[in-house]
Amino acid sequence: MQEGRSGGGQVAGRATGAKRERIIDAAARLIHLRGYHATSIEDILRATGLGKGNFYHYFTSKEELGFAILDRQTARFAEGVLRKAFGGNRDPLEQINAYLDLLLEGARKARCRGGCLMGNLAQELSDTHEEFRRRLARAFEAWRAFLEGRLHRARELGRLRPGADPARLSRFLLAGIEGAILLAKVRKDASVLAECFTELKAHLGAGTRATQRQVRPAAPSPATNGAKQRLKGQRP
Amino acid sequence: MQEGRSGGGQVAGRATGAKRERIIDAAARLIHLRGYHATSIEDILRATGLGKGNFYHYFTSKEELGFAILDRQTARFAEGVLRKAFGGNRDPLEQINAYLDLLLEGARKARCRGGCLMGNLAQELSDTHEEFRRRLARAFEAWRAFLEGRLHRARELGRLRPGADPARLSRFLLAGIEGAILLAKVRKDASVLAECFTELKAHLGAGTRATQRQVRPAAPSPATNGAKQRLKGQRP
Repeated sequence: MQEGRSGGGQVAGRATGAKRERIIDAAARLIHLRGYHATSIEDILRATGLGKGNFYHYFTSKEELGFAILDRQTARFAEGVLRKAFGGNRDPLEQINAYLDLLLEGARKARCRGGCLMGNLAQELSDTHEEFRRRLARAFEAWRAFLEGRLHRARELGRLRPGADPARLSRFLLAGIEGAILLAKVRKDASVLAECFTELKAHLGAGTRATQRQVRPAAPSPATNGAKQRLKGQRP
Repeated sequence: MQEGRSGGGQVAGRATGAKRERIIDAAARLIHLRGYHATSIEDILRATGLGKGNFYHYFTSKEELGFAILDRQTARFAEGVLRKAFGGNRDPLEQINAYLDLLLEGARKARCRGGCLMGNLAQELSDTHEEFRRRLARAFEAWRAFLEGRLHRARELGRLRPGADPARLSRFLLAGIEGAILLAKVRKDASVLAECFTELKAHLGAGTRATQRQVRPAAPSPATNGAKQRLKGQRP
């Protein structure tokens, strides 16, 4: 739990932390659907039922709140995805396939509303807000580097097609994901994601049997836990 | 040339059309960098040196101006790209490769500022403005269908890998492009695009020699002109 800037005892800290989280939650939900500029501090306060004083107790500005959303989103994404898709000692391509399946399931549940919060913010702010751009680029890079690590391992295991370049492939994987999420969002059709992910899986594992395999749950792997620590260390 | 709503003689029409174009130009430039919500009518008028009366002479609202930007962008994109990349009777995979090279060249010239205007608007407005979403989805679909046509032709010529599905591949091609443009924009690094396009080209033409070929200029093809007419007919 994150503490309010006021400090105080453990109980007070928990209470103020909860209000801070409520603000971040509401803001993240609104910004995810409407965008950063189209969401005002007033909109956020209305959604939380809190007053302006509460807001400025925890955040000096909407920008500071935006950075807090990025931090939390990066942490939640890494925690959730690393545990659910990369948690076992499965074949690295199976892990990546499980990750794509998670994204598809999420898009179906959300009926393709919102899309990727980090992608949306990158789209909206990369040319107008250098500090947002810098933080978003760092978050994408940390995630890409993690995927590159998995692809290196896949190459060692002979799972990638001959001549595959894990660094380039990891960037392409991220691009394919972000683009597919965008096209599904504009069509409001998750089958767009399913089709793009079928191509992505085929591209990663072309010429191997890995893309045909079923994903199986397995015991946690020390190697993946190590990667998790590195990823968490890299987040903005 | 598009006429102002006032009508009038040919000379007057040309003059009013020019002012309308100035407004669309300035708005498109600003919205490309800042986004739709973050660009006000006042910002647009300041950039053109025109007054409010001029704006409301041509547009009933910012929304109507936004639709005009979509129409013009779709037309310009189709004209420019169809002529430069798809104008000859080249191998369809060479045409697609030339299209990717054009996008890369454009991103380098723009130093990765702006990204894809249509992608930006789709990202920003798909969950909050149904009419924008509908028009953007139609524009993306027209372009995807055009690419699918080229991929069908590539398959007939034996240029695609065995089992390739032109419809799914065309969607993946668009997704890869949109995602790569986004990642290049957030990193401000065109090499991101170059790397992703290398993977896309390899994916489309895997197992054939088409991806290794140099792009050559060639005479216009009646088949491509037919496709151009269809694409223009489909635009919003």
